Amino acid sequence: MKENKKSAKEATIQDVARLAHVSPSTVSNVLNGRLDRMGQETVERIQQAIAQLGYTPSRIARQLKTGHAPIIGLVVPSVANPFWGAFARAAEETALAHGYRILLGNSERDPGREQSYAEEMWAQGIRGVIFGSSALSLRHLAGTINRGLHVVAFDRHAQSTDDLDVDSVSIDNVLAGRLATAHLIALGHRRIGFLSGPIRTVSRIDRLEGYRSALAEAGIALDHQLIWEGSFISTFGDIEGAKIGRRGAQEILGRENRPTALIAINDMYALGAYAGARDLGFRIPETCSIVGFDDIMLAEIAEPPLTTIRQPLEEMLRVAVERLIERLNRRETSPIHMSFAPELIVRASTTMSERTPGER
Amino acid sequence: MKENKKSAKEATIQDVARLAHVSPSTVSNVLNGRLDRMGQETVERIQQAIAQLGYTPSRIARQLKTGHAPIIGLVVPSVANPFWGAFARAAEETALAHGYRILLGNSERDPGREQSYAEEMWAQGIRGVIFGSSALSLRHLAGTINRGLHVVAFDRHAQSTDDLDVDSVSIDNVLAGRLATAHLIALGHRRIGFLSGPIRTVSRIDRLEGYRSALAEAGIALDHQLIWEGSFISTFGDIEGAKIGRRGAQEILGRENRPTALIAINDMYALGAYAGARDLGFRIPETCSIVGFDDIMLAEIAEPPLTTIRQPLEEMLRVAVERLIERLNRRETSPIHMSFAPELIVRASTTMSERTPGER
Repeated sequence: MKENKKSAKEATIQDVARLAHVSPSTVSNVLNGRLDRMGQETVERIQQAIAQLGYTPSRIARQLKTGHAPIIGLVVPSVANPFWGAFARAAEETALAHGYRILLGNSERDPGREQSYAEEMWAQGIRGVIFGSSALSLRHLAGTINRGLHVVAFDRHAQSTDDLDVDSVSIDNVLAGRLATAHLIALGHRRIGFLSGPIRTVSRIDRLEGYRSALAEAGIALDHQLIWEGSFISTFGDIEGAKIGRRGAQEILGRENRPTALIAINDMYALGAYAGARDLGFRIPETCSIVGFDDIMLAEIAEPPLTTIRQPLEEMLRVAVERLIERLNRRETSPIHMSFAPELIVRASTTMSERTPGER
Repeated sequence: MKENKKSAKEATIQDVARLAHVSPSTVSNVLNGRLDRMGQETVERIQQAIAQLGYTPSRIARQLKTGHAPIIGLVVPSVANPFWGAFARAAEETALAHGYRILLGNSERDPGREQSYAEEMWAQGIRGVIFGSSALSLRHLAGTINRGLHVVAFDRHAQSTDDLDVDSVSIDNVLAGRLATAHLIALGHRRIGFLSGPIRTVSRIDRLEGYRSALAEAGIALDHQLIWEGSFISTFGDIEGAKIGRRGAQEILGRENRPTALIAINDMYALGAYAGARDLGFRIPETCSIVGFDDIMLAEIAEPPLTTIRQPLEEMLRVAVERLIERLNRRETSPIHMSFAPELIVRASTTMSERTPGER
């Protein structure tokens, strides 16, 4: 077998078909996993022929032709957060439909690690990467981008300091923060906590801005004591979001002048806040309303089901992946930002404030 | 820049160092993302030199030398289940420590899709893949394995029908099923539901076997009505585990001769079963005890915190990845199975059966 592989003439799909007594398209079906209407015996005969001839599909040939590997890189904060798992799955569905695969990396929002991934993916022949970290600056990626890496920044819109050729896709996070806050204000809440990891990403800053502006519009003075940042955590806290949310809720609800409602920076923080609030004897929503962001699958099955701001994740990843593939094949386009509308999903974790309006 | 890339002499790391007026090890630090004690100006100068010279790190050279890409493939049922997210993250940690990256694919336990991934990863130069699906047969991977792909099967031990050179790693799933069942029996439960997707994987069959044997040992007759398989679902149900668990709990608890406790095939099913039980007015654990498998991060923060059977996931992935890397470098070893002990984690989702012993 080894001898076969090293022979001067590389085996082709036609050679395999001839040896297995099938058509080349049948071989192709096996190579692409389309085995639906094929007998097990036929599949085995084809596999045997492939092994005997040392045949390698033309993936590498295709890479040489297009100049890039048929792989989309994804660099996300941590796939251990179900949001990023759903993100990776959504990206993969679209990628597969276009004949691409997904190479995944977790960055924990560490710029050094992101840079390292960009360099390694580049060296691997990958020319399109989606970054999920919502980093304030993309300077650490400048070297690879200037060499020709196509980047889509997820959960981030272009910043005034950017001077890179980067596409981006996000919901309108300012509006998302406004929706969450206005919903609670409409329910009579006036002391609303804002629970987050370090507010040093584009999307977190935007959500906080939405919170501020909704309060201002309702004539409620901003109380900085109500903004809790889990800054004791070394990373930006995606891995342990639920734990940070729990701790944050314990701290902010343990104070004398406590809030009556909490906005958590994402659903995992919110589910952690459920636990933290209960640790102190609060009932959700009766004595503490909670709102999240994302609408992960767990939001609906939580007890009580979580009120949250939905991101249309599948649609966002579809356009992000298609945009990358388009740029891989036609290089002349200019950077664009694709903005989606957030949507308030009201479930059972929010209710009227216990305090009647005007009480304080 | 393009001219530089195409020049006869490829740029080396020394060329970059010379142009940027730094040492080669400083360039290496930038390439590997070790920027801790480096000024932004230095980093930019080095990136500029890399771009100017069209330098590509020696990743591809290394691949040519070792004969394989420094990438470990992971093919999991669905990374949208947080268990597989944690799985991917654990694999990545060990891979990174050895200079490897992770290429991820979701198979939804579809053999055709798994085979297609194996072929494509092979064509990409990947020679080591971990499959997480616990498939009853690995015949669909035979072609690639016989050509030299090293495979670790996760959540699966060797089957008598296997004749492939495949390593495997799992907990003892029979014991896991016994632990869950014996725990409920010790609490006085005699009607214990078993909630699962299609029981057509090695690990599900083993867990059910543990359930049967614990019942038999306690002298409790097996009631097939208590074994619920979500077979109306076309795939094996990882993506929508919580939804299937919810539906299963609704169905099995809605019957007249209902169980007093449920064992769910994994934690996502168990959290779904929480919702399903509550839909019918049950209280957990007072009127319905629930046990899961895996001990995902959410088990601890659920309300009530979930009693479950823990898999030592990080340790399992560490040995799986190290084993793959070992086989990539020394080819003469024989297949091994690495078995870990499951651990019962008792939390608040299980309690004494309402029915006193002897009542039925």
